Amino acid sequence: MSDRAARLDASWTANAEAWTRAVREGAIPSRRAGTDAAAVEAVLRGLPPRGRVLDVGCGEGWLARALAKRGARVHGVDASAPLVEAARAAAGGPTYAALSYAEAVADPDRLGGPYDAAVFNFALLDDDVVGILRAAADRLGAGGRVVIQTVHPAAVEAPYRDGWREEAFGAFEGDFEPMPWYFRTFGSWVGALAEAGLRLTEAAESVHPETGVPLSLVLVAEAG
Amino acid sequence: MSDRAARLDASWTANAEAWTRAVREGAIPSRRAGTDAAAVEAVLRGLPPRGRVLDVGCGEGWLARALAKRGARVHGVDASAPLVEAARAAAGGPTYAALSYAEAVADPDRLGGPYDAAVFNFALLDDDVVGILRAAADRLGAGGRVVIQTVHPAAVEAPYRDGWREEAFGAFEGDFEPMPWYFRTFGSWVGALAEAGLRLTEAAESVHPETGVPLSLVLVAEAG
Repeated sequence: MSDRAARLDASWTANAEAWTRAVREGAIPSRRAGTDAAAVEAVLRGLPPRGRVLDVGCGEGWLARALAKRGARVHGVDASAPLVEAARAAAGGPTYAALSYAEAVADPDRLGGPYDAAVFNFALLDDDVVGILRAAADRLGAGGRVVIQTVHPAAVEAPYRDGWREEAFGAFEGDFEPMPWYFRTFGSWVGALAEAGLRLTEAAESVHPETGVPLSLVLVAEAG
Repeated sequence: MSDRAARLDASWTANAEAWTRAVREGAIPSRRAGTDAAAVEAVLRGLPPRGRVLDVGCGEGWLARALAKRGARVHGVDASAPLVEAARAAAGGPTYAALSYAEAVADPDRLGGPYDAAVFNFALLDDDVVGILRAAADRLGAGGRVVIQTVHPAAVEAPYRDGWREEAFGAFEGDFEPMPWYFRTFGSWVGALAEAGLRLTEAAESVHPETGVPLSLVLVAEAG
């Protein structure tokens, strides 16, 4: 694991409390403006009644709870033990496990399943995403889909190329440690999906209703 | 055909002379900076020796000539009679036909083939692209690919949503009539390909070497 990837992992434990508060108090404007709804809709689209969903990098569990409220059977995994604890402490039906991506890649069965959908909501922030995508795809049942919501490639400053960037959480209240994250172009996402044996079937983009600026990119993929 | 689509079509005849001069004198900075090379590379990648290429919306023929120079057998079609005339008048091996997209959609056989690749280089500017994509896909042989180069979704001003825009050719020398063109988001491109029975296998993006700003999006697709 690279130094940056290690710092990325560590940031989710260091920031667990401030992050949980920010999410639960609705303090992240882009989430209110559309990305929360986009994640829920993308997962529910095409999900059978009482469908089984794996929430990879579930954090404090808001998405798992939102999906469970709409009838899905949800299992969430996250590498950050305090976030998993916060998720478990909240009400609602999902189950959770503390599990790192490295552990899931080494033994995909630990992710459980089979699932109708595996969702990564702003949870593919490392420079290597192929392994965990493959592990999640491995746990899908027939017709299962991978749903990814990520930073919109058109929403960041030049240079437009893959590379590590740093999120300072300047727009957030609370005491945050900066987090390294890896920016990917459209082409890089399409390539990573193909490398993981996945076929991109749909791309949706949430756009700020007032500014017209893209907020996020949602990719839907199926086993190749 | 909508009024804008008709104006778009007509602009290629009205601008044929100025356009031919601009292309042949290398007067379009983004083309020199990378998009010409990106089109040639994307078509040649995976093309068999002496591969057969259909250049849809070939214009004055620079891409057809560039591919022919590298051994491909190229047929170019364009709705603009004066551009096809200009293409024929230039040296090089490609054959050409004046053919509108509507004519090709009505009878795909008029496109010839079968081909190893069909390329649309900045040639899908209408709000309806599914018909001509289907017609081109229909003329592909086994393993054939569709290659599209288009305006990069990250390179235009908000609002980030599908819609007609207008190119005034302000950056160009010469006497140009404004041209309506239809902007598509990344999601819209993925959707149009799926609707045409094509599967996106690769996305490449050319980026300005100095500014780091994306110049174009190249999509490669195969029959579903």
